[in-house]
Amino acid sequence: MAMVCLSDFEAYAKKYLPKIAWDYFAAGADDCTTRDENILAYKRIRFRPRMLQDVSVMDIRTKILGSEISFPVGIAPTGFHQLAWPDGEKSTARAARAMNTCYIASTYSTCTLEEISTAAPGGLRWFQLYIHRNRAASQQLVQRAEALGFQGLVLTVDLPYTGKRRDDVRNGFRLPPHMKVKTLERAFEVCKMSLLDPSVTWNDIYWLRSLTRLPIIIKGILTREDAELAVKHGVQGIIVSNHGGRQLDEGPATIDALVEVVEAVQDRVEVYVDGGIRKGSDVLKALALGAKCVFIGRPALWGLAYKGEEGLQEVLRILQDEFRLSMALAGCTSISEIGQHLVQFSRL
Amino acid sequence: MAMVCLSDFEAYAKKYLPKIAWDYFAAGADDCTTRDENILAYKRIRFRPRMLQDVSVMDIRTKILGSEISFPVGIAPTGFHQLAWPDGEKSTARAARAMNTCYIASTYSTCTLEEISTAAPGGLRWFQLYIHRNRAASQQLVQRAEALGFQGLVLTVDLPYTGKRRDDVRNGFRLPPHMKVKTLERAFEVCKMSLLDPSVTWNDIYWLRSLTRLPIIIKGILTREDAELAVKHGVQGIIVSNHGGRQLDEGPATIDALVEVVEAVQDRVEVYVDGGIRKGSDVLKALALGAKCVFIGRPALWGLAYKGEEGLQEVLRILQDEFRLSMALAGCTSISEIGQHLVQFSRL
Amino acid sequence: MAMVCLSDFEAYAKKYLPKIAWDYFAAGADDCTTRDENILAYKRIRFRPRMLQDVSVMDIRTKILGSEISFPVGIAPTGFHQLAWPDGEKSTARAARAMNTCYIASTYSTCTLEEISTAAPGGLRWFQLYIHRNRAASQQLVQRAEALGFQGLVLTVDLPYTGKRRDDVRNGFRLPPHMKVKTLERAFEVCKMSLLDPSVTWNDIYWLRSLTRLPIIIKGILTREDAELAVKHGVQGIIVSNHGGRQLDEGPATIDALVEVVEAVQDRVEVYVDGGIRKGSDVLKALALGAKCVFIGRPALWGLAYKGEEGLQEVLRILQDEFRLSMALAGCTSISEIGQHLVQFSRL
Amino acid sequence: MAMVCLSDFEAYAKKYLPKIAWDYFAAGADDCTTRDENILAYKRIRFRPRMLQDVSVMDIRTKILGSEISFPVGIAPTGFHQLAWPDGEKSTARAARAMNTCYIASTYSTCTLEEISTAAPGGLRWFQLYIHRNRAASQQLVQRAEALGFQGLVLTVDLPYTGKRRDDVRNGFRLPPHMKVKTLERAFEVCKMSLLDPSVTWNDIYWLRSLTRLPIIIKGILTREDAELAVKHGVQGIIVSNHGGRQLDEGPATIDALVEVVEAVQDRVEVYVDGGIRKGSDVLKALALGAKCVFIGRPALWGLAYKGEEGLQEVLRILQDEFRLSMALAGCTSISEIGQHLVQFSRL
Repeated sequence: MAMVCLSDFEAYAKKYLPKIAWDYFAAGADDCTTRDENILAYKRIRFRPRMLQDVSVMDIRTKILGSEISFPVGIAPTGFHQLAWPDGEKSTARAARAMNTCYIASTYSTCTLEEISTAAPGGLRWFQLYIHRNRAASQQLVQRAEALGFQGLVLTVDLPYTGKRRDDVRNGFRLPPHMKVKTLERAFEVCKMSLLDPSVTWNDIYWLRSLTRLPIIIKGILTREDAELAVKHGVQGIIVSNHGGRQLDEGPATIDALVEVVEAVQDRVEVYVDGGIRKGSDVLKALALGAKCVFIGRPALWGLAYKGEEGLQEVLRILQDEFRLSMALAGCTSISEIGQHLVQFSRL
Repeated sequence: MAMVCLSDFEAYAKKYLPKIAWDYFAAGADDCTTRDENILAYKRIRFRPRMLQDVSVMDIRTKILGSEISFPVGIAPTGFHQLAWPDGEKSTARAARAMNTCYIASTYSTCTLEEISTAAPGGLRWFQLYIHRNRAASQQLVQRAEALGFQGLVLTVDLPYTGKRRDDVRNGFRLPPHMKVKTLERAFEVCKMSLLDPSVTWNDIYWLRSLTRLPIIIKGILTREDAELAVKHGVQGIIVSNHGGRQLDEGPATIDALVEVVEAVQDRVEVYVDGGIRKGSDVLKALALGAKCVFIGRPALWGLAYKGEEGLQEVLRILQDEFRLSMALAGCTSISEIGQHLVQFSRL
Repeated sequence: MAMVCLSDFEAYAKKYLPKIAWDYFAAGADDCTTRDENILAYKRIRFRPRMLQDVSVMDIRTKILGSEISFPVGIAPTGFHQLAWPDGEKSTARAARAMNTCYIASTYSTCTLEEISTAAPGGLRWFQLYIHRNRAASQQLVQRAEALGFQGLVLTVDLPYTGKRRDDVRNGFRLPPHMKVKTLERAFEVCKMSLLDPSVTWNDIYWLRSLTRLPIIIKGILTREDAELAVKHGVQGIIVSNHGGRQLDEGPATIDALVEVVEAVQDRVEVYVDGGIRKGSDVLKALALGAKCVFIGRPALWGLAYKGEEGLQEVLRILQDEFRLSMALAGCTSISEIGQHLVQFSRL
Repeated sequence: MAMVCLSDFEAYAKKYLPKIAWDYFAAGADDCTTRDENILAYKRIRFRPRMLQDVSVMDIRTKILGSEISFPVGIAPTGFHQLAWPDGEKSTARAARAMNTCYIASTYSTCTLEEISTAAPGGLRWFQLYIHRNRAASQQLVQRAEALGFQGLVLTVDLPYTGKRRDDVRNGFRLPPHMKVKTLERAFEVCKMSLLDPSVTWNDIYWLRSLTRLPIIIKGILTREDAELAVKHGVQGIIVSNHGGRQLDEGPATIDALVEVVEAVQDRVEVYVDGGIRKGSDVLKALALGAKCVFIGRPALWGLAYKGEEGLQEVLRILQDEFRLSMALAGCTSISEIGQHLVQFSRL
């Protein structure tokens, strides 16, 4: 079976993963409308390609928060990589480093932060966290991540409670007994997530700020109002995200929300987006609409499910090739030439 | 079979109810366009969720016409509950009381008003009526309901004649011989409804007003013009409804009509809506667009068909949990925080 | 099999007619886009129903060009009724008279005008004609029709050449040897229609005018420009029509074209519409948008195919009942109360 | 099997061509969105047909760059005709000449330019070229074409790199060993196209201009900005094209792009369009929106696959008949009467 595009990896993962794991990764909240809209919304954006631009030399490198990456696609935080591949997040870390891009390790990793660090020394990594009821636990995690060389903190703000993912309820999803949420270093029951603190507010950004010198990236913003608040509270970056459609169903597709967030932020901080990226041209669209970088969630898991580190590299390489080709065919040779003039919203 | 969402109850009811009963409950007029649009129209509304709002303490109680209910979902009037469950409306009354919400008993109940009252003393109940050719009969019903402690009168105005429900015609639908429309205390032929008076006009609201001290809620309004007339004629509440798509096909979806009715009414009376509610987030959308409360019709019948009183409670509990979760994920902690800023109409 | 709505007759006809006849009646030009759009366009129109209007007494009679009909639905001109039922147009004439409505007999009738007249003396009938290369033939037809008591001349203007109906080409459609286009009183080959004159212009309306005192109704107008010209050239009526989608594919749906024609005509002449009428509520929509009456084509043929005169009466009676019910549920009691306030175009 | 419309030829080709050849011809880039949109976009355009225009005498001839053709449909450049029919481009040339229209021979022809010329002396032909890294090779091709009597040079500008056509990758597409890209007179590997120069810019138009007195037509323009540049750089014609959806996926449908290009060009040069033409009425729409002529790609290949020269003639004849009929039914008798008043964009 030739792996030509990301859908091939999806088909592979659906076929070979245990149903309960596939369902967990694939799950969206309620009717899965937002999960699917994330993808469909890209289809409503049309390119305006320009010709005869001398695209013989292509440079697709970019920087996020000052660190260079080989192309503007990183790995979004997702949990439980051992469900996809025995080596779990260690493979993810190695693949990201090999491709010279950024990996956002999830709080719900099945490897410890130390294992992740050791697996791929020197790789660019950010650490994704929630604020727990037990603030000391959060503090300890932040400081461990900083000590281990993680270069950014990604605070997820759209999960005061876990969204209702019907298949997980039907399946009675929980981690198999031999896996643990090692990052949290204790037994963990997924569908409760009772450790998370739903009372968190914008003021807690200041508290988090006080714990660390790392840049803070806030993940889960979908409106201009919240984007404005994020800037005002001093974050360094915003990830426009709806948690892959796993939290509140029937909110906006992330690529649609990106437009209003970018407009509100006015370049004061970097804006990223995740959700629905399936082709290199999707990356180009997101950048044209103002994203500095995109992050992939499920496609990374499909890559892991296919062949671990090697499979994820293959996913990233395909995206990289497709992105470069899209840029060239649209008439751009470097990231700085990408802008809103490249796209228009379809009438459909 | 895990009952995770309302569709599970629908699937159960379709499988286990006699076809003639399922068809009667499911029926829409003509091509069933409006019945289906009631649901689809909710899909065209997108949330604008807000983050970091301290949603640790949630209060989803509200009041309708001064009475507190545990959450803004009541039971819409539907006929013939014995077709769904042997105990019929007695089970409905018990479930509504157990969940501390409002039950609108239909004129076409297969239990008497007395049986309904006795089954769940102290429950919040409204009585739904039509104006019959024999006004004395209507008057007697109103006064019986008032004496039995019903706290509101719901006058249905969209059924001067019965809509054309093709499956009912094909099935030759009528009640089985052992069931009776006991509320009306006489034999009754469904497809004729010859008792109803198609000559009723707005002036009859004054006549109804003269019979009772109960608040009058008018059910079946779909335009700003009629909403204005309803307020002018002194009703206390309006239920935006198209009779579940069973009367005039190809009128507006109720959630769309709600917008113009709310705008016309300008808070002078309470506005409610029924039709198409299938998830807790639908309730949140209706409230964001100005409804004080929503009412469920077919989902209540599915709950009855599943396990009578207990099944209906399960339906209500699921809606309650989903509604609370949607509110939290949208950043609201109480009903008063819900407003139009939470939603936008999709381009699709 | 209960015949509840027009689709039941369609299903019957599809099942029992010879394929070649079904295909001929069903055919649309090219991709059949316009044929199908005629129906879909009605679905994009939503009612704004009004309540509490005293609809106890309904009057659905109307007048077209001064003649009273029992309700605003007539029989559009279609050819070859013997393909549907042995008695052909004689049955059609009888059914139309029995239902007290107008029948437009086609030039391509398989009965003579005399047979049609004799079959149902006193019925309201118009005669549909083309202008032939041999003007004397046209003149003779006009004068025969007038002498036989036809009360209007319907000049079809959208067939200078026959549209490309793929199935007819594939089937090599032609009339069976025992049928003849008796109206024209000579052998006739359908797919050539070489008799029609493609050089006809607006000036020929004056010529036609000079032949007869009958009112002239022009059929096949789809734009405001042509509507204006029709009025200017002295016709008494306009039928907005795209020939059931059988001529130029991908023109407007007739209900959409009706809006611009009505606006252009400003009540100077009567405007009718055909194409896509499948329910009584479609009739109500057409009248709300300014049509004086609608005409049905294929549904009349399905009725004939079902049971000849009796079947067509059944079709008309269903439409009549549905139309009356739609009017009542929308809050109207007579034709004069129907207006544009009853409808709005859907966002979809 | 009757060949009634172009879809019949498509079905035939799909059935009888080797899968690898069918896939190559059918391929679109990535998700094939643009390939399919090229067709769908025509469906969103509605005619406004005019009646009673005397369409007895039809003249559908037109001129492109001064040369008369029998109707405004030419053959777009596509590669590897021997994959469809043994005689390859020789058959194409003969069919085009027989139908008195223009054939744009592709650089990737499997016959030499000399063979093409000899096969159909006197036919109107343009030569399609890319600019190669080896400019001398390009120069030689241009001068050979000019010497052989080709009357125009079509410079394709949307292929600095080959688009990603997934099926070709999966199939490992390459020419069978017995075929050669004879025009280039050397062995050739399709999926590399390493000969093309991605550094080409607008200035190279001046270089090309210096080589030849032939008119230059630029193919692959999709925006008003590039149309403006093309005019400024002195080309004689523009083909609005997205390479049949084989290059950048999710750009505009060509018929949509045509509108903005025509507006920008303001009649300074001739504008043509290819992509998505499947019916004579599509041709009429393109002309109404300002195209001087359209070119067909895949339908020509289907015609070849059916019966070589004869099959392609049949395709052209069907388009010609359909185009003439559409014109007549829309009320036009000559190309000069076709204009924007004939069409409107549908709400859908």
